[in-house]
Amino acid sequence: MKAEILTIGNEILIGDIVNTNASWLGDQLTQLGFTVKKMVTVGDSLPEMLLALEASKQNDLVIITGGLGPTHDDITKKALQEFFKVGLKRDEQVLRFVKSFFESRGIPFSESNVLQADVLENAQVLFNNWGTAPGMLVDEFGTLWAIFPGVPKEMKHLFSERLRPVLQAKFSVPKVIKSSYLSVAGIGESTLSDGYLKSVEALLSDNVTLAYLPHYDGITLRITASGDNEKEVLAQVELVRNRIKELAGEFIFSEEKATLGEVVGQLLKQNQWNIGLAESCTGGGVAFELTHTPGSSAYVKGAIVAYANEIKEHVLGVKKETLDQFGAVSSETALEMAIGAKNVLNTEVGISITGIAGPGGGTEEKPVGLIWFGISTPNESFTFKVMLTKDREANRKRSIMIVLDALRRSLSGLQGLPYGAQRIVYS
Amino acid sequence: MKAEILTIGNEILIGDIVNTNASWLGDQLTQLGFTVKKMVTVGDSLPEMLLALEASKQNDLVIITGGLGPTHDDITKKALQEFFKVGLKRDEQVLRFVKSFFESRGIPFSESNVLQADVLENAQVLFNNWGTAPGMLVDEFGTLWAIFPGVPKEMKHLFSERLRPVLQAKFSVPKVIKSSYLSVAGIGESTLSDGYLKSVEALLSDNVTLAYLPHYDGITLRITASGDNEKEVLAQVELVRNRIKELAGEFIFSEEKATLGEVVGQLLKQNQWNIGLAESCTGGGVAFELTHTPGSSAYVKGAIVAYANEIKEHVLGVKKETLDQFGAVSSETALEMAIGAKNVLNTEVGISITGIAGPGGGTEEKPVGLIWFGISTPNESFTFKVMLTKDREANRKRSIMIVLDALRRSLSGLQGLPYGAQRIVYS
Repeated sequence: MKAEILTIGNEILIGDIVNTNASWLGDQLTQLGFTVKKMVTVGDSLPEMLLALEASKQNDLVIITGGLGPTHDDITKKALQEFFKVGLKRDEQVLRFVKSFFESRGIPFSESNVLQADVLENAQVLFNNWGTAPGMLVDEFGTLWAIFPGVPKEMKHLFSERLRPVLQAKFSVPKVIKSSYLSVAGIGESTLSDGYLKSVEALLSDNVTLAYLPHYDGITLRITASGDNEKEVLAQVELVRNRIKELAGEFIFSEEKATLGEVVGQLLKQNQWNIGLAESCTGGGVAFELTHTPGSSAYVKGAIVAYANEIKEHVLGVKKETLDQFGAVSSETALEMAIGAKNVLNTEVGISITGIAGPGGGTEEKPVGLIWFGISTPNESFTFKVMLTKDREANRKRSIMIVLDALRRSLSGLQGLPYGAQRIVYS
Repeated sequence: MKAEILTIGNEILIGDIVNTNASWLGDQLTQLGFTVKKMVTVGDSLPEMLLALEASKQNDLVIITGGLGPTHDDITKKALQEFFKVGLKRDEQVLRFVKSFFESRGIPFSESNVLQADVLENAQVLFNNWGTAPGMLVDEFGTLWAIFPGVPKEMKHLFSERLRPVLQAKFSVPKVIKSSYLSVAGIGESTLSDGYLKSVEALLSDNVTLAYLPHYDGITLRITASGDNEKEVLAQVELVRNRIKELAGEFIFSEEKATLGEVVGQLLKQNQWNIGLAESCTGGGVAFELTHTPGSSAYVKGAIVAYANEIKEHVLGVKKETLDQFGAVSSETALEMAIGAKNVLNTEVGISITGIAGPGGGTEEKPVGLIWFGISTPNESFTFKVMLTKDREANRKRSIMIVLDALRRSLSGLQGLPYGAQRIVYS
């Protein structure tokens, strides 16, 4: 099953917009078992579009996005009329929807908007709940042509709700496709795949796949299985899922696609504990991340960003002797900062980060990239360190993820730490 | 001058990677005066590549990226050998570089790495300072073919340092192209273009362009002029720049591409003032943004993230009566928070943010999206409010930008506030 993705729009060619639609469609079609042979972008030009359409005929499926708006430079419908040698017909359901769409927003309805309801004579209308340009589906020249507006939200809606069922009926696309996610942190992609999940490969096939999707706070594992029997497909997903959980359980922070901040928030809520933070090199980034979650005021009381040593001492209560003897970037200071956060912010849980983010400020003994973390809960108090990179912003972002993952492990009763770091336990 | 961008790689077709290379090249080529007619992506497949190469012959310039690695699925060179009907030659300079590249990293040098030094017989080598795959330039069939590795850093280096001079010599590309930037905040794109910069349009032409590049903390204006005489080109850029500065000066926070955090940092340093922050709904985001800048410890002492009212009262010293009478989201609380930040963190400048980020917590009187800001410097103390959206994360990010822009204006002696907000002045 060969497919092509054809994008229409000058704004892509001049580099104003990155073509994320094509990537999203490539991923979706691949999951459905199509082989995407080509992605093509051409401008709002009739001859270029006609050439591209002609060249794409050899595919089983062609998805066309963009150029369906009501302005004069949106010429996708014009090109398709010429290509299919058909006229337009007015779709009354679309017309009613377009009118109500403008009415409900209090925007004057102009004649050019009526044209949005004109669809290709040979097309089946794919009704668009999210915008005024309907999708269209044409079966011609032995190829299925799906035509979508370029607005990502509308395109995704039309693909998922309108086109996918058609593909499942028409092509030998598996009737059932199930994806399931596990979110992992505190381990590198290659260590995870080669050191922990090697034996999972034996469970994988064309119909059962495992994708590593890395992002800033870890890796999302996507397990996808497909087939014609729902029960069998779900069992295959479960089998891989369970094997991964056996092999790499401690790294899994979410059995869905939750963020570390959300997971830590859930654990704090379950314990009915509040958290206070003491941040130096992350400069408020951990607090910002935790308060990203709506309702986080239920467990985040606040944070002290103690960028200057003076603040560590006078606001957080880190002892002057500790700073003098061990320095600001040390296990001892990290511990006193975490405990200081608890005291000053009146919370059960305190965490701290103090490190040398770079690019300057490193010494031989304490180089750029050395970060100390402190964690203090009603159950335990400990510190640990990691050595990161020379890159200031990467160090700050990874430190946020590391401290949240360490807290997640502590609140879950796990002993291990991210990236194999070692606890220094204080009683 | 017609150009095409041809990307090679299955990872693009299956949606694992978004093709940002194509956008970057589209922007660069457009600036040089080329018309990008088409962007095409095909997989690591010989017949598909040959078809795509054949179809691209009609252009003056074709840029090919990807598939130049040393592994068996990197077949760009193989396809080009067949397409141009030529063999390979070993380039000794590249070979020496590849060897030293591996040596300096202590990586064993394998036979497959030697192949990186094999280039097309009919190609001029474009030496790659940043990786082991050299770029190549071929003049054939009346078309110029530039072949680059797909690693963005290497591709950009080869385009800018190696290809651009060739294009300027070979095509009627203007000899001189100068771009200049102005960074703008606190105003929407359409208000800026239609309400302030309308008369700038008369100064623009094919050779003098103005691009609006919006991003999370404002809009970067890019003025580009081109021609054959450097002095004239620079004068054209200056003319547009000066007109924009006359018309919209108060919104310009940087005459380069500096961030608001960097600009505020510079202003604080010039005054030899330290800053302390009191953040509620932004949860540490302003402190995180300010400390993004290396060396920011010279003027950022710290922040109190007072998410709970208890912290506003007990750590920042906001009076209980103020909170009871006016509420946490009010001018009065914003003022006491800003002054509290100065007192607790012992700084000359204090700023505060307290608002209802959403999605919950709104009332009729204080709806979601209402944000109060406080600013207190040795010169003045004032508060202001803005009404943002229902979107929590957008509200948080825009609040960070707004308070930094307001502080930038205050430190620069300007009276106006972002988005036309009104000062409430306290003496």
